[in-house]
Amino acid sequence: MRILVVNVNTNESVTEDIARAARQAASAGTEIVALTPRFGSESVEGNFESYLAAVGVMDIVMAYNETFDAVVQAGFGEHGREGLQELVNVPVIDITEAAAHLAMMLGYRFSIVTTLQRTVPQILDRLRVAGVLEHCASVRATGLSVLELAEDPARTCRVVVNEAMKAIRNDQAEVICLGCGGLAGLDQMVADEAGVPVVDGVGAAVGLAETLVRLGLSTSKIGAYASPLPKARTGWPIPRGDVAP
Amino acid sequence: MRILVVNVNTNESVTEDIARAARQAASAGTEIVALTPRFGSESVEGNFESYLAAVGVMDIVMAYNETFDAVVQAGFGEHGREGLQELVNVPVIDITEAAAHLAMMLGYRFSIVTTLQRTVPQILDRLRVAGVLEHCASVRATGLSVLELAEDPARTCRVVVNEAMKAIRNDQAEVICLGCGGLAGLDQMVADEAGVPVVDGVGAAVGLAETLVRLGLSTSKIGAYASPLPKARTGWPIPRGDVAP
Amino acid sequence: MRILVVNVNTNESVTEDIARAARQAASAGTEIVALTPRFGSESVEGNFESYLAAVGVMDIVMAYNETFDAVVQAGFGEHGREGLQELVNVPVIDITEAAAHLAMMLGYRFSIVTTLQRTVPQILDRLRVAGVLEHCASVRATGLSVLELAEDPARTCRVVVNEAMKAIRNDQAEVICLGCGGLAGLDQMVADEAGVPVVDGVGAAVGLAETLVRLGLSTSKIGAYASPLPKARTGWPIPRGDVAP
Amino acid sequence: MRILVVNVNTNESVTEDIARAARQAASAGTEIVALTPRFGSESVEGNFESYLAAVGVMDIVMAYNETFDAVVQAGFGEHGREGLQELVNVPVIDITEAAAHLAMMLGYRFSIVTTLQRTVPQILDRLRVAGVLEHCASVRATGLSVLELAEDPARTCRVVVNEAMKAIRNDQAEVICLGCGGLAGLDQMVADEAGVPVVDGVGAAVGLAETLVRLGLSTSKIGAYASPLPKARTGWPIPRGDVAP
Amino acid sequence: MRILVVNVNTNESVTEDIARAARQAASAGTEIVALTPRFGSESVEGNFESYLAAVGVMDIVMAYNETFDAVVQAGFGEHGREGLQELVNVPVIDITEAAAHLAMMLGYRFSIVTTLQRTVPQILDRLRVAGVLEHCASVRATGLSVLELAEDPARTCRVVVNEAMKAIRNDQAEVICLGCGGLAGLDQMVADEAGVPVVDGVGAAVGLAETLVRLGLSTSKIGAYASPLPKARTGWPIPRGDVAP
Amino acid sequence: MRILVVNVNTNESVTEDIARAARQAASAGTEIVALTPRFGSESVEGNFESYLAAVGVMDIVMAYNETFDAVVQAGFGEHGREGLQELVNVPVIDITEAAAHLAMMLGYRFSIVTTLQRTVPQILDRLRVAGVLEHCASVRATGLSVLELAEDPARTCRVVVNEAMKAIRNDQAEVICLGCGGLAGLDQMVADEAGVPVVDGVGAAVGLAETLVRLGLSTSKIGAYASPLPKARTGWPIPRGDVAP
Repeated sequence: MRILVVNVNTNESVTEDIARAARQAASAGTEIVALTPRFGSESVEGNFESYLAAVGVMDIVMAYNETFDAVVQAGFGEHGREGLQELVNVPVIDITEAAAHLAMMLGYRFSIVTTLQRTVPQILDRLRVAGVLEHCASVRATGLSVLELAEDPARTCRVVVNEAMKAIRNDQAEVICLGCGGLAGLDQMVADEAGVPVVDGVGAAVGLAETLVRLGLSTSKIGAYASPLPKARTGWPIPRGDVAP
Repeated sequence: MRILVVNVNTNESVTEDIARAARQAASAGTEIVALTPRFGSESVEGNFESYLAAVGVMDIVMAYNETFDAVVQAGFGEHGREGLQELVNVPVIDITEAAAHLAMMLGYRFSIVTTLQRTVPQILDRLRVAGVLEHCASVRATGLSVLELAEDPARTCRVVVNEAMKAIRNDQAEVICLGCGGLAGLDQMVADEAGVPVVDGVGAAVGLAETLVRLGLSTSKIGAYASPLPKARTGWPIPRGDVAP
Repeated sequence: MRILVVNVNTNESVTEDIARAARQAASAGTEIVALTPRFGSESVEGNFESYLAAVGVMDIVMAYNETFDAVVQAGFGEHGREGLQELVNVPVIDITEAAAHLAMMLGYRFSIVTTLQRTVPQILDRLRVAGVLEHCASVRATGLSVLELAEDPARTCRVVVNEAMKAIRNDQAEVICLGCGGLAGLDQMVADEAGVPVVDGVGAAVGLAETLVRLGLSTSKIGAYASPLPKARTGWPIPRGDVAP
Repeated sequence: MRILVVNVNTNESVTEDIARAARQAASAGTEIVALTPRFGSESVEGNFESYLAAVGVMDIVMAYNETFDAVVQAGFGEHGREGLQELVNVPVIDITEAAAHLAMMLGYRFSIVTTLQRTVPQILDRLRVAGVLEHCASVRATGLSVLELAEDPARTCRVVVNEAMKAIRNDQAEVICLGCGGLAGLDQMVADEAGVPVVDGVGAAVGLAETLVRLGLSTSKIGAYASPLPKARTGWPIPRGDVAP
Repeated sequence: MRILVVNVNTNESVTEDIARAARQAASAGTEIVALTPRFGSESVEGNFESYLAAVGVMDIVMAYNETFDAVVQAGFGEHGREGLQELVNVPVIDITEAAAHLAMMLGYRFSIVTTLQRTVPQILDRLRVAGVLEHCASVRATGLSVLELAEDPARTCRVVVNEAMKAIRNDQAEVICLGCGGLAGLDQMVADEAGVPVVDGVGAAVGLAETLVRLGLSTSKIGAYASPLPKARTGWPIPRGDVAP
Repeated sequence: MRILVVNVNTNESVTEDIARAARQAASAGTEIVALTPRFGSESVEGNFESYLAAVGVMDIVMAYNETFDAVVQAGFGEHGREGLQELVNVPVIDITEAAAHLAMMLGYRFSIVTTLQRTVPQILDRLRVAGVLEHCASVRATGLSVLELAEDPARTCRVVVNEAMKAIRNDQAEVICLGCGGLAGLDQMVADEAGVPVVDGVGAAVGLAETLVRLGLSTSKIGAYASPLPKARTGWPIPRGDVAP
């Protein structure tokens, strides 16, 4: 099967990290196609950029010319999943929700360790809307921006473990979710240090996408995620020439 | 004071209806500037179009060259308010939330009467995220699309009253909110028929915007709605030439 | 328009402070009539006194002989708003709810800074009943009683700012509400110190009352707040001669 | 032990019905003293009258000259319990909460059958504030006023059973609570007809009061229900001479 | 009346402590029969042992040959109450829920002080399922195992008081519940030290059982707790010979 | 990998149905070992039998002599998952929760169609405890017992579709979950009739178990699901000789 894994920012190197994590999680026989939006921000930290990302992700998925079996939206806490569900007929999995779903099966409470404090409310809202907030012990910020994460992986791991330990000790978390697509790949190191299961949303989403595809399940089209009605739209699809890389 | 009232679809005639309702609600001395997005869909019914609207609204507000004191986002149940709050320093009021806030002061439970059934979950999510879902008795759909609303005002009023009466009798609603920017102007007629207060979100939002401006209050910039960090963005602002009216 | 702003305690000097804040918030053309109950306690700190206040407020409003367009109940976290809504046909706004409604439009989470710790549960209950608790980060007590607030305004401002900063740092509040009618007037000073929007309930309630009146909206009378049925009552209205100061 | 059972309206014949139900539920050795407020309304149906009742109940309890071991507030869904808890050192039991507490131990969901529809929101709020709303399936109104209940006991029983059956069939209630002090005494008849346990709040409250007294438990005075601070009050206690029948 | 008070572990000395507490709480004329399961664990700390206890308690109650009027399940936070309710026709009271019900009538928030941290989530789940979690401020663990509690009563009391004080100061608890059947008997000592009401679940449950019996109330059999259907079962009832001490 | 799929009743033919569904859902290379408890009831319909099942499942898993990579508990709405998580180090997936997790990714609201009405509250409680109740539109009973399901598959399918259509029309469900292990295999037929995705918990759980194993994730052992402490237990493990098939 082919799974589209879509970065939410325009940064190709983040796309590569995500692709690597996705491929590592995928079963034999699953092809991972990683996409980078041609519209949006070089990193997504906050609602403005997240709304750009929602459109950028929908655009790049619609521009993909070949068949695919599922889509993974690889931004943590970002907007847009519901729109994508309307546009395609295959399963759409958001990495935030995927991480939360798996974490809930692994312990009584999970915490999320993310980037900047300003993104915390948005993550909480996305968990709330998805109905998976109840067992979330906390969302904790490291203070590192998305782009700083890659600068010094050792430091990144250290600060993530540091917040993870606070989540475990102060918030009674029993499982940690990595709260940024750019943290994909750190799960094992953090798990070794923190002594609890660590869920990376990209791997979680790939696994869930594979499961849904194997079970022949996809989005219900009778209600919230019915296909859009045909009507006039301006500026959509995003004109190709103008948004060249 | 000057309030920008921003339609969420690209339909100028809906913008005019909204502008009329906004001006009727405004105090003497308040200037209403009505804006139509240059990016998006001719009507917004569902998440895909709503995410386009989020970007279209942010774009047209950022393209506005003069000063303003508040922004009203005039789409019912649409995404985007949080992004706009990051981009501007003046108060941003969403008509969905505005209607709910006022309705909560007028009765024990309110119901919303909206367009198509497919928009109901999205409206519920927006109320939930805004923290104003608790006293919502129901969100009921008339089955009329946004563009059908204007075709036959008498029929529109009739079906809105019909759903309002069901909300009152079956869901114990004591107040009705008109759940579409395109319904602005029907509030008095529906109130007369239904015998309960009817809140139009556009008027509600204009009133709340004026109140915040008069009190010198605006969005907190220390957390969720801090200004975006400076960074590279692709395709943003939306190029002017390509999205001609 | 004429708005009755009703103190909940029998202390005329608190009434004057409230009136001043109300007048400062009111639009040109709005007349503020400030009332002091002739039944009740010199300050309201707890449920017993708050229930007296509920009756004292209803009594003094019913004793008012001229027409009015709205009523503001100017006690923070007090009982009684629902009773008043039954008795009059104009909008009734409680300052607790008014502050919360506006605060929710200004940031992701708000905190309330109030007087004594003993009043905190009651404030929480009133927010819960009004359906505006969800985005409340905390209710924090300064330890100052209502009557101590006025003794040393500089100290009062200092301790309010102190609790506001704890709410911001520990509880992730982004907006502060002044949790006592007697704090009206401190909003700007606290905002300057704390760096976040500060909502005074009296001003908020006056603004919301004006908005409702302008929009022609008032309490729904078909359910929870229908007019009382005619029946025999003992001791009500409170006899004038016997409750002289 | 001596338990004060306090009616919330000024109607002596309702007090007698309540006293009868209380005595029937009491253990040997428990003395029931039934009190009628000297301030308030001949029946309590709505918030205005309920706030009068809150004060009327506090007044008549404070006017009681002898010792007592517990107080039962015998109005369904009424305000005031928290104030009474501040004023006395013995346990205070509200019949609404008492009924809900016992009902929760008898089945998965309980419903309340009460008088007029207008009282339903208030009952819901009182259950919410007391933290016992979660397992409440519904609050259903018979349409009979408090005073009509006594006019034709056979009809009253019939309409109560009728609503009880709807609660069982439509709302999945497994237990019924009688939602008015004036329904005390009908529990056995309704139970026989409806085939489920029926809880009368007055009996429930007497039983719970006895239990607390026997266990040596009373209201915590360190927080929400601490004794009122000494301060000047106007019109309180309610002057005796002036409120004679 | 005769109340069966059933320990959840196989430790006879804990049964004796529980019996003593039950008898102290019982009214004159109430006979307490204390039972020890013949299947299960010597102490119950966690879900595995708690599920054994659920079966052990049902087994020993079904093996009891004489009549009885109520059953008290004397394990804090344990599974099983719902099964027992299906098997018998008399009231079944769980000490966790009993403590919470009484605590809710005594203060705004209660905390539970229990044994090991690992039992906290299970207690929270049992409160949630019973619908009595809302006013629970916290569940705090002493770190002492069930069997350590009895080793040094002075130390036990000290650490319980210590956690109680943290609950009062940090979590705003106003009432403390002893969170283990093995703590029965310490309530008065802890109350004296902590200055708040302390509820022992065993006493609470006995009182509530007596109340229900006196009121003629028992479990509704029309829904969740209907009697089991007749069918083949393997290994049940638990064979007597094989599980001898 | 090897996954143990454990029936909750003692009925071998139900085990075979479950095994078939599990094998159909499993990836190539996954071995399904289906186990039937040697303790418990021939069908599980209610809490008493569900608590027996909890012990029966733990027993048969502990008696399994070879290695395994995950356990699926194949009873819908049954107790016991948390105990099993303490006893083993591999992932434990309950089919109720598995179905809900997948359903939440496929539509806005899901409904469950199950056997007897009496099992509905227990299913609701298990969803609540697992934190996946929020998007559950309803749990609907067909009125068929577990053993009747297999008697006439055509009738079973018909009544399941019938309740599914009610869930879709009346409760706004967009996805249906089959609420009984014995319904495994009907998913495609029901989906074809109802026009929405239908999730069978057994397949869902096998897919989720595979995903967790592939990602190297298992239950956190630092808190709620830590291994049981060593201590004396009576009657456990369940003696082999006495509970012969």
